[in-house]
Amino acid sequence: MENRTPTPGIAPPDIVRCAYTDLVVTDLERSRKFYVDVLGLHVTEEDENAIYLRSLEEFIHHNLVLRKGPVAAVAALAYRVRSPEDVDTAEAYYKELGCRTERRKDGFVKGIGDSVRVEDPLGFPYEFFYETEHVERLTQRYDLYSAGELVRLDHFNQVTPDVPRGRAYLEDLGFRVSEDIKDSAGVTYAAWMHRKHTVHDTALTGGDGPRMHHMAFATHEKHNIIQICDKMGALRISDRIERGPGRHGVSNAFYLYILDPDDHRIEIYTQDYYTGDPDNPTITWDVHDNQRRDWWGNPVVPSWYTEASLVLDLDGNPQPLTKRTETSEMAVTIGADGFSYTRPDDESGSYAGEAAKGFKIGTQL
Amino acid sequence: MENRTPTPGIAPPDIVRCAYTDLVVTDLERSRKFYVDVLGLHVTEEDENAIYLRSLEEFIHHNLVLRKGPVAAVAALAYRVRSPEDVDTAEAYYKELGCRTERRKDGFVKGIGDSVRVEDPLGFPYEFFYETEHVERLTQRYDLYSAGELVRLDHFNQVTPDVPRGRAYLEDLGFRVSEDIKDSAGVTYAAWMHRKHTVHDTALTGGDGPRMHHMAFATHEKHNIIQICDKMGALRISDRIERGPGRHGVSNAFYLYILDPDDHRIEIYTQDYYTGDPDNPTITWDVHDNQRRDWWGNPVVPSWYTEASLVLDLDGNPQPLTKRTETSEMAVTIGADGFSYTRPDDESGSYAGEAAKGFKIGTQL
Amino acid sequence: MENRTPTPGIAPPDIVRCAYTDLVVTDLERSRKFYVDVLGLHVTEEDENAIYLRSLEEFIHHNLVLRKGPVAAVAALAYRVRSPEDVDTAEAYYKELGCRTERRKDGFVKGIGDSVRVEDPLGFPYEFFYETEHVERLTQRYDLYSAGELVRLDHFNQVTPDVPRGRAYLEDLGFRVSEDIKDSAGVTYAAWMHRKHTVHDTALTGGDGPRMHHMAFATHEKHNIIQICDKMGALRISDRIERGPGRHGVSNAFYLYILDPDDHRIEIYTQDYYTGDPDNPTITWDVHDNQRRDWWGNPVVPSWYTEASLVLDLDGNPQPLTKRTETSEMAVTIGADGFSYTRPDDESGSYAGEAAKGFKIGTQL
Amino acid sequence: MENRTPTPGIAPPDIVRCAYTDLVVTDLERSRKFYVDVLGLHVTEEDENAIYLRSLEEFIHHNLVLRKGPVAAVAALAYRVRSPEDVDTAEAYYKELGCRTERRKDGFVKGIGDSVRVEDPLGFPYEFFYETEHVERLTQRYDLYSAGELVRLDHFNQVTPDVPRGRAYLEDLGFRVSEDIKDSAGVTYAAWMHRKHTVHDTALTGGDGPRMHHMAFATHEKHNIIQICDKMGALRISDRIERGPGRHGVSNAFYLYILDPDDHRIEIYTQDYYTGDPDNPTITWDVHDNQRRDWWGNPVVPSWYTEASLVLDLDGNPQPLTKRTETSEMAVTIGADGFSYTRPDDESGSYAGEAAKGFKIGTQL
Repeated sequence: MENRTPTPGIAPPDIVRCAYTDLVVTDLERSRKFYVDVLGLHVTEEDENAIYLRSLEEFIHHNLVLRKGPVAAVAALAYRVRSPEDVDTAEAYYKELGCRTERRKDGFVKGIGDSVRVEDPLGFPYEFFYETEHVERLTQRYDLYSAGELVRLDHFNQVTPDVPRGRAYLEDLGFRVSEDIKDSAGVTYAAWMHRKHTVHDTALTGGDGPRMHHMAFATHEKHNIIQICDKMGALRISDRIERGPGRHGVSNAFYLYILDPDDHRIEIYTQDYYTGDPDNPTITWDVHDNQRRDWWGNPVVPSWYTEASLVLDLDGNPQPLTKRTETSEMAVTIGADGFSYTRPDDESGSYAGEAAKGFKIGTQL
Repeated sequence: MENRTPTPGIAPPDIVRCAYTDLVVTDLERSRKFYVDVLGLHVTEEDENAIYLRSLEEFIHHNLVLRKGPVAAVAALAYRVRSPEDVDTAEAYYKELGCRTERRKDGFVKGIGDSVRVEDPLGFPYEFFYETEHVERLTQRYDLYSAGELVRLDHFNQVTPDVPRGRAYLEDLGFRVSEDIKDSAGVTYAAWMHRKHTVHDTALTGGDGPRMHHMAFATHEKHNIIQICDKMGALRISDRIERGPGRHGVSNAFYLYILDPDDHRIEIYTQDYYTGDPDNPTITWDVHDNQRRDWWGNPVVPSWYTEASLVLDLDGNPQPLTKRTETSEMAVTIGADGFSYTRPDDESGSYAGEAAKGFKIGTQL
Repeated sequence: MENRTPTPGIAPPDIVRCAYTDLVVTDLERSRKFYVDVLGLHVTEEDENAIYLRSLEEFIHHNLVLRKGPVAAVAALAYRVRSPEDVDTAEAYYKELGCRTERRKDGFVKGIGDSVRVEDPLGFPYEFFYETEHVERLTQRYDLYSAGELVRLDHFNQVTPDVPRGRAYLEDLGFRVSEDIKDSAGVTYAAWMHRKHTVHDTALTGGDGPRMHHMAFATHEKHNIIQICDKMGALRISDRIERGPGRHGVSNAFYLYILDPDDHRIEIYTQDYYTGDPDNPTITWDVHDNQRRDWWGNPVVPSWYTEASLVLDLDGNPQPLTKRTETSEMAVTIGADGFSYTRPDDESGSYAGEAAKGFKIGTQL
Repeated sequence: MENRTPTPGIAPPDIVRCAYTDLVVTDLERSRKFYVDVLGLHVTEEDENAIYLRSLEEFIHHNLVLRKGPVAAVAALAYRVRSPEDVDTAEAYYKELGCRTERRKDGFVKGIGDSVRVEDPLGFPYEFFYETEHVERLTQRYDLYSAGELVRLDHFNQVTPDVPRGRAYLEDLGFRVSEDIKDSAGVTYAAWMHRKHTVHDTALTGGDGPRMHHMAFATHEKHNIIQICDKMGALRISDRIERGPGRHGVSNAFYLYILDPDDHRIEIYTQDYYTGDPDNPTITWDVHDNQRRDWWGNPVVPSWYTEASLVLDLDGNPQPLTKRTETSEMAVTIGADGFSYTRPDDESGSYAGEAAKGFKIGTQL
């Protein structure tokens, strides 16, 4: 592929896991109501410009920074690396990639020490850090445990036009692919990539980018996710439930997508599987498989394909978007030109352009 | 109301609860796979023409009869009454109503004794019985307990054109209304009515009738329902999941609607509330409340409003349908002419014909 | 039985269900912390002498009154009856029984109207009422739903020396027995009796009485009960968890017993079964069956057998206790003189005084 | 410590995770009933001498080998390493430690290739392998998903007399300590050590060793564990439930201990926490903390402390036991000479030999 990001001559930093999102919101108090009062994230500290939040089982300073700003966007997707030296490595790695980098020995945000932020080859603001303030891990603080408790940050999901290009770049960076969605013509629609032993630390979703599709928090059990829906119903904000709850085909996790007051998308996610073996099998899904995105065949709403959050460059300006040129997953699966199947062997589902037998009709136009 | 069914001069039979459905299916083996292999109902007995099934905690002979026949339909919706004498009472009651009745001292099906079947004023085949064979109650047979175990028959749901007429008839029969759906013009779209201490033993759904909308089995917990979805996904019959899972507004139950091989609709249902007090408050929902049918605002698929099972007369012939003449719930809530709201006070939702602010768009056309 | 309570010549009141406990506590603020902060019951109203609490799905004024007093005890176990006239009936019924009664047209507690309290033949303070203030039913207030939410009052449990005598009295009063525990010599150790369609509204436990063994609140699912344990662990009051969680043999419910600051015992209970049919099968357990009280064979701690709450007469003085003269369940099942079995056919378990094969040893010494 | 196992001069093999147990059972058919019929493990293959079993989400050949033999024991605890070369490294590492090793290029059991088995410095038979046959990963085979489904092998637990010695040896081997139990005099009673991102791949429990204390399988949710108890109750083998279910203090997991037909102990375990960060905080518990082993303060039965499985040397002979010389956890916490506390600041709990205030009495003698 001519468009491939070059592989640097040096080893990449040893990334441990996705760690936090630095998120710009336009009304801090309104966002606080959503993340603290509705979702129950725990406040590590806050001031008039920013709120630092963490999930129940987290011991680093935060998993989410809400930062007041003029335009709703993502200021950084931050990964923790294995050692202080890996921050140096990250800086060198991206410099060799020709990317703009910024190093701050005291960190970009409270609670985080020596860090480097970069504008990566896909246009995303990535941060790498090791130093962080340890805070009380609330794992056994069941006196604080809400019915819809969020216990871990699970992953990011990024929108980028050219998924294979992004995938190769992330594989060079040490990520491994657990699952992907393709078609028989070789087009890749999405890929899931991990460092920790879960299905992903980040995923790439094909579309106009760079944008953040969502970030995901994990719960312990499925009923915790149902409670979040029930609570949003009680608060009469059910219109902020965008999609789900459901069972993913990809990842096998039980999921829910909701929208924050700035339309940043949050996934609530539980019970994917262990991926830590070196030969963990990669699963490839057919884009026409009607159970790939929802194992129960429930429809993906169009907004889920089209909407996403802007990301910022290191000056704090929104990155311009590059159009996806390959076919879109929405187009090939929904509506007049798309088709999907539930049972690939059904005769009527054997050629494109016609709804397959076994497809759940009436719900996808 | 001129169309009101007259109230008999005698007291109605003392109905205990909905007890079983006598269901005609066109391919017994195919239906067995669905109800026994997929749903895990327990076979009390079976022969080449019929299969008698019960839920885990049932001690009467069956909750469902699958009977082989030429046309998929409902042969009877059977209620248990409090005493043998109540069967006499039922027979007399319906005769006074001018309904056709048929009494069989040995029952219409295996495991049930003295019974009366009637063609009721709404055109439904109702059965009333007291005598039944007690069978092993499997409550603590956890060695037989499947991950999606169905533990009780919960209710019937019937489609009838004139809900207020049907409601008055059932109230005369001793049912009490727990919830209903109306609009500001006084149209009733649906009503939930009970004898046992749950939200309903049967419900009336406005539409062309008489037809059976669905019958419902209860699970212990919400995860049991999720498992049924997961299993249907694994069996690649996710297209037979029609609607849900979700949380009902009406009844507050967690629910799922699936379709059997003949398109008979089955609801799986759990955790509604106690209704046994004489002054149990009746809840009336606005038909435009977008959370009435799904507390999370997820859309009701059109087929759920339009499709239902035929019912048979006492000769085994399908009852002809009478059209509903009042406005339909689907028409007033979905599409170009309908509107719904999540928050009734939102300004943009204050007049018909325009989608209200807070409505979940993109999913209901 | 010579000791039988006479059956009155008039019909008993039509009891709907157990409704609330009027509970005397010695430190109101300390009890408030337990019932409101730890257990999450909802305050309907409160003043310096009493706190009125209800469970999530309750629509009557309260399920529990905490009343400040000098001695921890039960002032009343209150049942709701079907109509205002049933209060008259109750008064007459107990007068005919020769019991002391007290009628108050304005009720004994806030939120309850015309009521009668009696000192019943077993020495318990029973109340019967119909009139009550309706309050907001919080069923769908998922914004208030805690991880260990209590959703209904389920039952009372009373300690009385002579279980068959108490049972006959309650059967006369209209209760029906769902389950009991006996031995082969004909001794009854306990009986479960219901009016609503659950396993019990009250149970009789053989022992020195009259005392209240416990009252029970229901949760929706099993994980809600586990959360209550986890929270009590987090608050470092795990020593207030007396027994469980576990699965009952009797009732099949998942259970937990905890102690309030005055040692009043509270059960948390979920998922028993439907008992509303007139011929609901009664289940008799062998007192030596090691799974009768805990389906998993986990031991019953001695305090659970020996400790219970005093009850008051209508003057507010503790009722004196009458000793149980028959063998105690604890004595015949635990320790040197008792025996239990898991599998009744194991040879070594066929005679008393020796631990049966299959008995879980090391834990019931 | 003079007794310290020397640290080899070469780097240890890169261990990925605990992978399987090679378990000798005395009656293969009886063990099959337990592991397949009761617990629902999936048979990869079997013959008259051995059965190869795996958990739902496993993709390597097996997590458990049941092998017919004369004496119930553990033939090997097997770890997967990151590459084929790591098997060479393991062999060299243990040779340098002076341990007996045996290398088999075709593996010791079916489905596993080139492996080395060693008699490690603590006397345990450890195996290291990379090559394995991939089999169908049943993750989404919800048609096979039982109500108590075991989804992963989680960890081993080994009994050894000198926990600090064992801990140092395992730390040299690349394990990291997540939690331990100590007393104020510096005695270590147990330690939990991991390679994958969970609380442990193996733990060391102080006692006469080498013996295997248990192996543990994970479920998705807590109700799955409750179902296993319920099923064992239904099968009237509740006496094979040794301890639990409960919530661990250490690890925070929800747990259950059961015994197989040879008294090999199996733990069922769910929902510990992420440990993958390099500075994951180590938690040290006071041995007198009554919530360390059960967060709810429920007692540990004596058999859990005293019983464990023999392990075999490479000739298949049981390893002789070395006595623990330090104080035992059972002795210092249960009975006349032990003490425990729930709230460490309670005055009465401040000196040994007396049960602390807040301790759950009546259940631990």
